[in-house]
Amino acid sequence: MTYCLGIITKYGLVMASDSRTNAGNDHSNITRKMHTFVQPGEHVFVLLTSGSLSCSQSILTLLKRDYARNQGLAQAPTMYDAARVIGKAVREVADIDRAALERDDYAFNVNIILGGQVKGEPPQLFLIYPQGNPLQSCEESPFLQIGETKYGRPILDRGIRFDKTTLEEATKYALLSLDSTMKSNVTVGPPIDILVYSTDELDIRRRRRFSADDPALIKMRTRWDQALRQAVAKLPDIRFNTVPAPIPGENGSSEDSIQVVDHQPTDSDDQQAQMTGARSKSDQI
Amino acid sequence: MTYCLGIITKYGLVMASDSRTNAGNDHSNITRKMHTFVQPGEHVFVLLTSGSLSCSQSILTLLKRDYARNQGLAQAPTMYDAARVIGKAVREVADIDRAALERDDYAFNVNIILGGQVKGEPPQLFLIYPQGNPLQSCEESPFLQIGETKYGRPILDRGIRFDKTTLEEATKYALLSLDSTMKSNVTVGPPIDILVYSTDELDIRRRRRFSADDPALIKMRTRWDQALRQAVAKLPDIRFNTVPAPIPGENGSSEDSIQVVDHQPTDSDDQQAQMTGARSKSDQI
Repeated sequence: MTYCLGIITKYGLVMASDSRTNAGNDHSNITRKMHTFVQPGEHVFVLLTSGSLSCSQSILTLLKRDYARNQGLAQAPTMYDAARVIGKAVREVADIDRAALERDDYAFNVNIILGGQVKGEPPQLFLIYPQGNPLQSCEESPFLQIGETKYGRPILDRGIRFDKTTLEEATKYALLSLDSTMKSNVTVGPPIDILVYSTDELDIRRRRRFSADDPALIKMRTRWDQALRQAVAKLPDIRFNTVPAPIPGENGSSEDSIQVVDHQPTDSDDQQAQMTGARSKSDQI
Repeated sequence: MTYCLGIITKYGLVMASDSRTNAGNDHSNITRKMHTFVQPGEHVFVLLTSGSLSCSQSILTLLKRDYARNQGLAQAPTMYDAARVIGKAVREVADIDRAALERDDYAFNVNIILGGQVKGEPPQLFLIYPQGNPLQSCEESPFLQIGETKYGRPILDRGIRFDKTTLEEATKYALLSLDSTMKSNVTVGPPIDILVYSTDELDIRRRRRFSADDPALIKMRTRWDQALRQAVAKLPDIRFNTVPAPIPGENGSSEDSIQVVDHQPTDSDDQQAQMTGARSKSDQI
């Protein structure tokens, strides 16, 4: 499995990918899923790939071969054209491999995220489907995911805002989203590649690979575990009020029996709640 | 879509379900997905259903008919036997409907969570698959989900411990898990049904339906949004250090370019960080 993520805000892009590949359970391996095409001052293209490694490798090979000849992505005048160049390579490989795959019940399932900027345009973020057609992210949905997307999505839904989220914050959210996914699905795994692109930079200056035992990654994960539990602890409390049993069957329901009440700080809290507005009044709903 | 969740801890069970049903886009509707069979002092069975409403209704009809005749679940001597009774009903309906469904490319996809207790046994939690076979939860995996399970799972993975989590805490986690799912998938929707069962109670005493506009639910959701953002803000910070561009291609990577540093409290923080251990020393990794 794979989890890749592109975030776009008015400040630029954050691109992130895991590195777990398995071509069958016995071929579990590490593969870089982030690929870059850079002409400083002219264009930056960052590709994240999911799906059959064999097929995405073929697509990358075609794209790199053309790029080396100063064709394809090297000549794309806009990000949209770049997305179409990639889509064309996807279709070329589909033409070669799809029938043979489907004959044995494998799907041609390569999805690609493209983030980057071409001089004269703002940064843009696209998803290229296995059929080769491109989807562009919009300000209302300022991130795109491929692979195992669901576990890591709620934190993004709550945290990423095109107009507000800085690249530093977006990087933190990307790490948390990857980490949540790795925790819930063991087939998504480190190292994590992160690339941060600032609008109009037209070069790649921030890029890091976090290995499984990277102290920075472990620190972020440990603190996040603690912070989440503290956050839950300081939410309104649940209080039970045992009432006479409702009529058996489908109709028994009583608001009194499960109450949501303001959190009562206790000694076991980390003493933060007392300083910051958790009222001592019950304020029961 | 549906999202249902059963949590088991040494203190008892928390069962939760959404209520959104759609039989085609024009038949979006509200349906209770939680069903109870109770003989006070003898047994409590709580069923949560996902999949085709038509099929799960048929299964429930068979189970209720037998129960009214003092057969089936009414006679189950253990939770395992109860799970088998339900599995048998699943298979009966599959025998009636499966071929016709599959002829039109619909799957027979009813999944059922069974939680409850029979006198003389501890509370137990099962998942009954569409094929009728039962899976029991274990202490290491003290919750079971059906339907749209992924969005709401990370918070459970981090929060639920069989030996530690109280029923009050488990109820809070269940609400957060449902709420995360509703936020990321609009086809999972309120009202939310929550039932809390305390070990050896052998009756149903805590049960509540949270409507979409329930002030308690809104309060929990609003506070959780705030708490999550505060939690992220107080994590180690990301700091960029623009370094010379790495070699274009696949090899450029620099730990210096994306740094994880201890959080520096600012005025815009909620002033909690300063009190609780976020050191002012950089402590860069």
